[in-house]
Amino acid sequence: MTSSFHPPIRTLMGPGPSDVNPRILEALSRPTIGHLDPAFISMMDELKTLLQFAFRTTNQLTIPVSAPGSAGMECVFANLVEPGEKLIVCQNGVFGGRMKENVERCGGTAVMVTDDFGAPVDPKKLEEALKRHPDAMAVAFVHSETSTGVRSDAEVLCTLAREYDCLAIVDAVTTLAGIPLEVDAWGIDAIYSGTQKCLSCIPGLSPVSFSPRAAAKITNRKNRVQSWFLDTNLIMGYWCTDAKRSYHHTAPVNSLYALHESLVILEEEGLENSWKRHQLNHLALAAGLESLGLGFAVEEGSRLPQLNAVSFPQQIDEAAVRRALLAEYGLEIGAGLGALAGKVWRIGLMGYASNRKNVNLCVSALGNVLNAQGHRCDVSQAIAEVERVYV
Amino acid sequence: MTSSFHPPIRTLMGPGPSDVNPRILEALSRPTIGHLDPAFISMMDELKTLLQFAFRTTNQLTIPVSAPGSAGMECVFANLVEPGEKLIVCQNGVFGGRMKENVERCGGTAVMVTDDFGAPVDPKKLEEALKRHPDAMAVAFVHSETSTGVRSDAEVLCTLAREYDCLAIVDAVTTLAGIPLEVDAWGIDAIYSGTQKCLSCIPGLSPVSFSPRAAAKITNRKNRVQSWFLDTNLIMGYWCTDAKRSYHHTAPVNSLYALHESLVILEEEGLENSWKRHQLNHLALAAGLESLGLGFAVEEGSRLPQLNAVSFPQQIDEAAVRRALLAEYGLEIGAGLGALAGKVWRIGLMGYASNRKNVNLCVSALGNVLNAQGHRCDVSQAIAEVERVYV
Repeated sequence: MTSSFHPPIRTLMGPGPSDVNPRILEALSRPTIGHLDPAFISMMDELKTLLQFAFRTTNQLTIPVSAPGSAGMECVFANLVEPGEKLIVCQNGVFGGRMKENVERCGGTAVMVTDDFGAPVDPKKLEEALKRHPDAMAVAFVHSETSTGVRSDAEVLCTLAREYDCLAIVDAVTTLAGIPLEVDAWGIDAIYSGTQKCLSCIPGLSPVSFSPRAAAKITNRKNRVQSWFLDTNLIMGYWCTDAKRSYHHTAPVNSLYALHESLVILEEEGLENSWKRHQLNHLALAAGLESLGLGFAVEEGSRLPQLNAVSFPQQIDEAAVRRALLAEYGLEIGAGLGALAGKVWRIGLMGYASNRKNVNLCVSALGNVLNAQGHRCDVSQAIAEVERVYV
Repeated sequence: MTSSFHPPIRTLMGPGPSDVNPRILEALSRPTIGHLDPAFISMMDELKTLLQFAFRTTNQLTIPVSAPGSAGMECVFANLVEPGEKLIVCQNGVFGGRMKENVERCGGTAVMVTDDFGAPVDPKKLEEALKRHPDAMAVAFVHSETSTGVRSDAEVLCTLAREYDCLAIVDAVTTLAGIPLEVDAWGIDAIYSGTQKCLSCIPGLSPVSFSPRAAAKITNRKNRVQSWFLDTNLIMGYWCTDAKRSYHHTAPVNSLYALHESLVILEEEGLENSWKRHQLNHLALAAGLESLGLGFAVEEGSRLPQLNAVSFPQQIDEAAVRRALLAEYGLEIGAGLGALAGKVWRIGLMGYASNRKNVNLCVSALGNVLNAQGHRCDVSQAIAEVERVYV
């Protein structure tokens, strides 16, 4: 006989999932009701309004996809791309590469604009590509590259896309609630995010939003969307109607309770306050890590406060450090991914996990483990540097 | 400011979601851990074994898709169908039609074998189609049609498929744990189910399983799977490997806790006992409903015990009855779907919700509401008929 699974208690400071707020776990476990229950329909309406608030948009087509962030990415490309269409995809990390995969699997062509892993997307390169490819239909880029901890200038990139009459498609999986994001003001046409990052909700849902311009393109497609499950023309009959809701698929009822609660918490805090909190805790973490003798893989101006790509002296056995943090402190930090595998740690300070307690825990635990492995550093000095930021 | 959402307490006896066992809701709310945490990886291994147990299979490629049942359906077709291939799709309800949609969106051709809504798939019609279309690659059918409450003879249909050298693709969304299902013994090549039916788990996941023959077809595809998110070639690197797990997408950690718990409960009860329990409660419900003067839309030999398509006298305002059940008893039963909309109720007795208490509640509440709406029936007699079945 198999036993029930009782997970160990961790502090999640990797690239996501981040620690889930206990209020959200409690909401998640409320009794399931039907996906066509009038009470559930009212909750869905609130959820759309809350997502519009978080995205800063009035887009009607703003909903949570019933699957993780990579399905949100696929939802955006599968709905917008028709076979034979050309898109410019900016890649400066793992997730830009995944965008290319998606474009190609939808029958489109991806013109790649590449920057180094660890650098932001270069607007000049994008503009050159836009000039060379006047037939491009859209520009796609990752706002917050979870694989490298880099923030690109979404406003500038979207403005360029608009100048060259392209739709702007933005990956905001790690962005939402962590750093400023203005879907309407920046002219973003299609955007997807995740719930398990700065919303501190459970993994498994992907909020998406489409501008009226993007929605019109979907409505006027020549070919059917290749995914039935992700076809927004069908999903809208359930999520976006004042008339009788039509059944499409069974909504993930409890996960949507959790997302609702996480957005209620965000509304209580205020979006700007959430952005400020992420920045403050990032600065405190950075002060502590630098005092320990660690560096950043990303230039100061492009660092994501919610995901810190931390470099370390070459002689450190980075996997052993992560194992010790997990075993001795229940603390999860992330390994590098793609081109940065083995070269950085990814330390997340996302949502609920972005707090003074966690910054202190991370700096002291990391310092202790480094000392135990023979890399001398002054933990109390590092903690003092952390606390100085909060004063 | 938006308030937290507190759902009303319902008894879910519709076509799904069914009532979730409180043990599963509690498991769902356990603290989130990372999707690459060693403790989580161990849980995943158990989960695969438990799914093999529930499906009665030794298929290695047996995993939960990170999205609802309709994504499980899409996972099966997107992986197995290459452009230009022909499949025979049996349709006797709404979900057979959705299979056709999926085949076509994957670039395949669906040869339809149709039976009336409310009738099982006719093996003779299938055999005729197999003879007419020797180039067909697969046969697809719905084992338990959730839209009509009909069970088709999966063993016979799979045997036919195998005789004509076709893969057998089976929709078991409402089947799993409710009625006998033998993936290996019946020669099923690809199957998908849902968690919100007879597993009594939350909606949002779809267990799937592929036979070695089906897995080989996927591995040897000429074209890439059109969905990145559902590409089992990629998913296997995370779920089905003894080597280092590679990141594909962030697993829906908490939902997987819930699925694990629901399968632990199923293992404790035993699969045969679960089938017997569903049958017994169905007989009791049927006795009570017939005593109230209601009928069944499906012939006795083809009725699903877990989903009862109930017919009623024409003069009844069926929507008013459902509204009264919900408002006065917190009891959800389902409306008809597709060709049976307005003609039947769909009363589910699925998983945890399939119990003596619910059968009594449903018969007495329905009788009381019918009386209140002027349709005379003898509730105490009906309850006596229910109880007679349990003696």
